[in-house]
Amino acid sequence: MSGDLFAKVRAYESYAFRQELEAQHLLPYFRVAEGPPTAVTMMGGAPRVNLGSSNYLGLSGDSRLTSAAHQAALRYGTSVNGSRLMNGTTELHLRVEEAVANWFGEEDALVFGTGYTTNLGVISALVGDGDVVLCDAADHGSIVDGARLARGRLLAFRHNRMDRLETLLRRASSTDAGILVAVDTVYSMQGDLSDIVAVTGLSRRYGARLLVDEAHAVGVLGPDGQGVAALARLADGVDLRMGTFSKALGGSGGFVTGPADVIDFLRVQARAFMFTAAAPASGLGAALAGIEIARSAEGEERRERLATNTARLRVALTELDFDVAPAPVWENGIEVQTPILRVPAPDDVTAARMWRFLYDHGVYVNVALYPAVPRGQAQLRLCVMATHTAEHLERVVDAFTVLARKLTVRPAADLVAG
Amino acid sequence: MSGDLFAKVRAYESYAFRQELEAQHLLPYFRVAEGPPTAVTMMGGAPRVNLGSSNYLGLSGDSRLTSAAHQAALRYGTSVNGSRLMNGTTELHLRVEEAVANWFGEEDALVFGTGYTTNLGVISALVGDGDVVLCDAADHGSIVDGARLARGRLLAFRHNRMDRLETLLRRASSTDAGILVAVDTVYSMQGDLSDIVAVTGLSRRYGARLLVDEAHAVGVLGPDGQGVAALARLADGVDLRMGTFSKALGGSGGFVTGPADVIDFLRVQARAFMFTAAAPASGLGAALAGIEIARSAEGEERRERLATNTARLRVALTELDFDVAPAPVWENGIEVQTPILRVPAPDDVTAARMWRFLYDHGVYVNVALYPAVPRGQAQLRLCVMATHTAEHLERVVDAFTVLARKLTVRPAADLVAG
Repeated sequence: MSGDLFAKVRAYESYAFRQELEAQHLLPYFRVAEGPPTAVTMMGGAPRVNLGSSNYLGLSGDSRLTSAAHQAALRYGTSVNGSRLMNGTTELHLRVEEAVANWFGEEDALVFGTGYTTNLGVISALVGDGDVVLCDAADHGSIVDGARLARGRLLAFRHNRMDRLETLLRRASSTDAGILVAVDTVYSMQGDLSDIVAVTGLSRRYGARLLVDEAHAVGVLGPDGQGVAALARLADGVDLRMGTFSKALGGSGGFVTGPADVIDFLRVQARAFMFTAAAPASGLGAALAGIEIARSAEGEERRERLATNTARLRVALTELDFDVAPAPVWENGIEVQTPILRVPAPDDVTAARMWRFLYDHGVYVNVALYPAVPRGQAQLRLCVMATHTAEHLERVVDAFTVLARKLTVRPAADLVAG
Repeated sequence: MSGDLFAKVRAYESYAFRQELEAQHLLPYFRVAEGPPTAVTMMGGAPRVNLGSSNYLGLSGDSRLTSAAHQAALRYGTSVNGSRLMNGTTELHLRVEEAVANWFGEEDALVFGTGYTTNLGVISALVGDGDVVLCDAADHGSIVDGARLARGRLLAFRHNRMDRLETLLRRASSTDAGILVAVDTVYSMQGDLSDIVAVTGLSRRYGARLLVDEAHAVGVLGPDGQGVAALARLADGVDLRMGTFSKALGGSGGFVTGPADVIDFLRVQARAFMFTAAAPASGLGAALAGIEIARSAEGEERRERLATNTARLRVALTELDFDVAPAPVWENGIEVQTPILRVPAPDDVTAARMWRFLYDHGVYVNVALYPAVPRGQAQLRLCVMATHTAEHLERVVDAFTVLARKLTVRPAADLVAG
């Protein structure tokens, strides 16, 4: 008799640790939000300063986006009830694609249901049998899954190690394989940047095509909020840029933008685009309103506030001796404030206790434990918003101040009781 | 020097045919909807009776769903800005999961961003190294992609050939592989049913786990709209049922329902669930309203009208000598009216001309050409709605009547000139 496919469910090793955390009210996952992901959010019946959301510009929860989403649903329905190919293309889908291509100065763009399916569909359609895709080890899971779904081979290099990328490129280019290099521009767990200058130069030198994932940069960094490739004035050296509407832009759906012929190929070859319902109109209506705001003077102002808030929090945490990495410095000496700060923790249980302490003090942060990060690299992740006020940040710094004191004078086990 | 990854874009073989169709205004794809996918929809500046949408119960475009979607976005924002694990779980996500589990009489349910990512996430999480997944050759692309992304092996059997399934099961069960059988209950292109009695029996006999995709059956078939497994009183013999909110239920998102421990495993192991933004609140608000209506007396009435409409159209087309398959007959002799009718066409170009003729006569249908179907199996696909009135159906039959006459007395090339 065969094995039972569900046996692995019962044998699942991380489950016991999760249950243990849960029993001690220390599980940082699946917390239930009782309101929108705004600067202060309702969780567990109380307001918490929200450092756990990618709502970087504060646009989700903004009445202009909510109204635009409603107008879109009124006009096109709550479901578009079909794939883009068949009957799921509305005027709104085309308008959003035009807006994206226009924003990035590219020939064309394609809108997917989510950012995840964008990477999945683009990479698996382009990387065929005999081709290779080279990924940074810290790339987002959607790039990894796209590469795994592709018929070609996935090869990963150590995070931001350009010498390793070059080794892989040199090897791959000695064959007749087509090569795709796929990197995040802002890494979601580390909060650091890809070395986009080196990645672009190496990709060109070795005849590889380059896809960059600007999910955490779109609307947030670069001129007009166009992201890191544009910030580096390297947009022309990048073949395809992708991003999502569900972070800074406050909507839903994902997109890829680039040359018209490649986009047109994806339109009929990207399975994650074709074999799924078209992106719902409401999320695209919100996205279109989000893009307009992101590209306006107000958007510029929000980006500035976001950078100021991030710099401020980074300095305060560093002064408290938390080992927060300095802001990445650009070639011209300018600091790039990605809105993600990483606070390392000594171990998984302490990370969970630190999370709970902050939660109890009205501050919500994300936590990454093994297996989301390698063993021994547990961390808190703080995502800053443009809409965090000075008072919000003060509350955060106050909570971290007490946390720092407790971490030095008492065993971590006492944190929560504390 | 390596090959160019984009070379395949320029060499793409189907492109010329598509351009040719487009030049003759015969391309049936990417038509632009100017309104909601209701019984009559606006396309190309004119109303067309809509037989190209999965809005089976007519709920997308219903003001109750639009209002519920708006209320949800007002409360939780236009984006939830994070993965379910981190900060993307709202009360609404839990409420929808509870409603689904309750509806299907299962222990638990998990809500995904789309139906596509549901199959992708579930299958790739469960089917590990050394396991196998057995698929019907007509299974939806999302099942195929889930199986391809999984570390185990994908083996396909000819559409609905239970002898072939048994052969594969016998072979697989002689090893210690865990086995997943994954089938659609209603096939989206054929409009026929899986032989769920045989599939369930065989899966049990050979120790395989069974996942059924009820995407085109949920809300449409079975007691309380629970789908085909429930219609066959075989829900207990099926391990996991999945479906989507974006068809009959008028919302967005996908779901899987089954035993609590399996669902809980998927919650932290299904990458297509974890590495993506949580399903937007608006689509889930609409889905919840859709589920309520689908389970009410009104839902029952809509299902009856849908079955009556389908039966009526099937009879009319058959009388016009279109080779529409008879409704599948259940064991008890009762016809099951899946809402999908398939009209075969002699070849791709004629199919496109038939489509255009109907379009010009105010009727919108879907078309499947190679490579969506095997060469020589071009077809029109008609999806019926509960909200099609007698007058709408009359217009459809009138258009097909003229089409039938033209197809017999003239070469197809003259169809469009009319």
